[in-house]
Amino acid sequence: MASSTKTPEMRKDTVFNRWVIFSPARSRRPSDFKSKSPANPNNSNSSCPFCIGHEHECAPEIFRISSNTNSDWKIRVIENLFPALSRDEELIQNTNLNPNPSFLTCISGFGFHDVVIENPVHSVLLSDQSDSDVGDVLLAYKKRVLQLMCNESIKYVQVFKNHGASAGASMSHSHSQIMGLPIVPATVSIRLDSMKGCFEETGKCSLCQVQCEELLINESKHFVSVVPFAASFPFEIWIVPRYHSSHFHELDDDKAVDLGGILKLMLLKLSRQLNDPPFNFMIHTSPFMVESSQLPYSHWFLQIVPQLSGIGGFEIGSGCYINPVFPEDAAKVMREVNV
Amino acid sequence: MASSTKTPEMRKDTVFNRWVIFSPARSRRPSDFKSKSPANPNNSNSSCPFCIGHEHECAPEIFRISSNTNSDWKIRVIENLFPALSRDEELIQNTNLNPNPSFLTCISGFGFHDVVIENPVHSVLLSDQSDSDVGDVLLAYKKRVLQLMCNESIKYVQVFKNHGASAGASMSHSHSQIMGLPIVPATVSIRLDSMKGCFEETGKCSLCQVQCEELLINESKHFVSVVPFAASFPFEIWIVPRYHSSHFHELDDDKAVDLGGILKLMLLKLSRQLNDPPFNFMIHTSPFMVESSQLPYSHWFLQIVPQLSGIGGFEIGSGCYINPVFPEDAAKVMREVNV
Ligand SMILES: Nc1ncnc2c1ncn2[C@@H]1O[C@H](COP(=O)(O)OP(=O)(O)O[C@H]2O[C@H](CO)[C@@H](O)[C@H](O)[C@H]2O)[C@@H](O)[C@H]1O
Ligand SMILES: Nc1ncnc2c1ncn2[C@@H]1O[C@H](COP(=O)(O)OP(=O)(O)O[C@H]2O[C@H](CO)[C@@H](O)[C@H](O)[C@H]2O)[C@@H](O)[C@H]1O
Repeated sequence: MASSTKTPEMRKDTVFNRWVIFSPARSRRPSDFKSKSPANPNNSNSSCPFCIGHEHECAPEIFRISSNTNSDWKIRVIENLFPALSRDEELIQNTNLNPNPSFLTCISGFGFHDVVIENPVHSVLLSDQSDSDVGDVLLAYKKRVLQLMCNESIKYVQVFKNHGASAGASMSHSHSQIMGLPIVPATVSIRLDSMKGCFEETGKCSLCQVQCEELLINESKHFVSVVPFAASFPFEIWIVPRYHSSHFHELDDDKAVDLGGILKLMLLKLSRQLNDPPFNFMIHTSPFMVESSQLPYSHWFLQIVPQLSGIGGFEIGSGCYINPVFPEDAAKVMREVNV
Repeated sequence: MASSTKTPEMRKDTVFNRWVIFSPARSRRPSDFKSKSPANPNNSNSSCPFCIGHEHECAPEIFRISSNTNSDWKIRVIENLFPALSRDEELIQNTNLNPNPSFLTCISGFGFHDVVIENPVHSVLLSDQSDSDVGDVLLAYKKRVLQLMCNESIKYVQVFKNHGASAGASMSHSHSQIMGLPIVPATVSIRLDSMKGCFEETGKCSLCQVQCEELLINESKHFVSVVPFAASFPFEIWIVPRYHSSHFHELDDDKAVDLGGILKLMLLKLSRQLNDPPFNFMIHTSPFMVESSQLPYSHWFLQIVPQLSGIGGFEIGSGCYINPVFPEDAAKVMREVNV
């Protein structure tokens, strides 16, 4: 790892199977790397349908997690009012591939698109909550994933969070989204194939091996947080279970609190170091129907991407990213942020 | 094609091998789809190094295309002052894969990163120029691609243009970029594999078949412009040679003027319809070392992507896009724009 040399380097992300260019000539010093568009100045809640008391302005509720301390809700999982996919069961019959003409492959858009309202109060961020409250949000994801698993037309579930307008968020009240898809996205198949390649070559799961002193940010009882060796984005962070686990929904209550704590810590560190940047996080799990032969190398993780600089035609065209910050430098900065 | 029904649809892009969700519930009416951040308000040229007379403020020139009418230049191809890759030949020895440890694959960042200054005058856009002037820019790309081909360490060349800040452009003077890469990006391999699959199934090149009445915008002598059947982005356009051709650098002078004309027309239509949106265009060609068995299905094209809405965690996580505008609706709108 050549962070001190001043020549560019290309590293292969062996999980997503893509090359990333690390380019010191395009870098600003890591400590100068601050977001120019802090995430969410808008804290007005007067017209927010996600706030407590406005439940009737929302699409139907799927379930709620009640608060221990009073009779109100703590977390709500609701339908998305503008769903990308339709939960109309009548569409299912058309989710089989229409092979003719084969250049024009198309299925009907059956699926689920839900919103998780992470807490009832408009201005409370996920990182403002306690470890176990964040853990409860993760357990709400898990509960919904398990429900979606029961629908045999659903092949993969993408859990994600958008925070801040330049990370795509159109609502400022703290929330995340869950999409149940009738197909396995190509990115997921590529990831599994790539991890399979590593496994066949080395006999080891590549994410069980992710820990590396220079790239480590923190470790908890069950998780590590690292900047990945071939991070596509500056200050990208992966939180990876230390135990081998193929599916996010294997998370138990104890591990959920632990994950809640390390996720909160990473969000606080990013916010402190990078001036409350917009960010996305995504849970990368395995398809529901994963063969048992795939289990030894499919390992779920949570990816956090602060949105510090946009992309351009090079990235859209080639799928390669240019990252001005070497991962070991980003990890060092992140280790040292006090929160 | 179900643009009139109000249910969502998933279509497979058989060129890039990815699913796209078409979601009427998330749509605005196509005619309302205007950019809120017109591309380039900044037309001040006082400190622009790309302007005529400021050549000494630029990184070294590689070549220039002279003007017929006076002694000055018309197009300059120069080195990028902040190159993502280094043209230092000493790095070449390290571009062989370092297989140990195999989880950490890394090569040195040898490669080329050039800028094409498309004309000497700050405020002149590519679409302001004549068909044959745009053709000359395309021929400058070709000339540089042919030069890069001579370096046996270069495996693929990505030509691209960023226009407008939210499309990534940091310079407002009309320009594009060319990167010569020491690897073939995964996206390119996936595209070739996917087109191979189609070819094996149907005996035809999928891009030779791209023409379809509902998706067509325009046709010229040698090219068609279409909204692709599974466009990832609203109002995305592909300009595809009508003749089968694997490599962009096969473009001859006659076809360059023709392509210049249709490219100009598409940029004018996008600008007129969508309020001068930021955009990227990318040339998708084949790797230099393409086997002759691949030639029947590798077909280059130019992709134009207006940047109208950002992406979020769903797209970063799954690699699937959500497009609120059905391609046949976008094509109809684009056919009808008068310029
Ligand atoms: N009253 C109500 N009841 C129920 N649901 C309500 C509601 N009011 C609003 N919603 C939904 O709440 C969701 C909030 O989601 P986000 O703010 O994370 O981003 P959004 O999905 O808008 O788009 C971002 O994320 C998607 C997916 O990554 C990208 O496609 C897109 O470009 C990006 O801007 C929206 O999907 C919206 O439809
Ligand atoms: N005096 C000079 N002489 C020579 N070259 C000069 C120069 N002054 C500036 N340059 C170069 O000119 C280029 C202009 O390029 P663009 O405006 O298209 O986008 P940029 O490359 O900055 O980044 C966008 O495109 C890249 C690639 O897609 C993305 O990584 C990035 O996020 C996005 O903002 C820059 O690369 C810059 O280094």
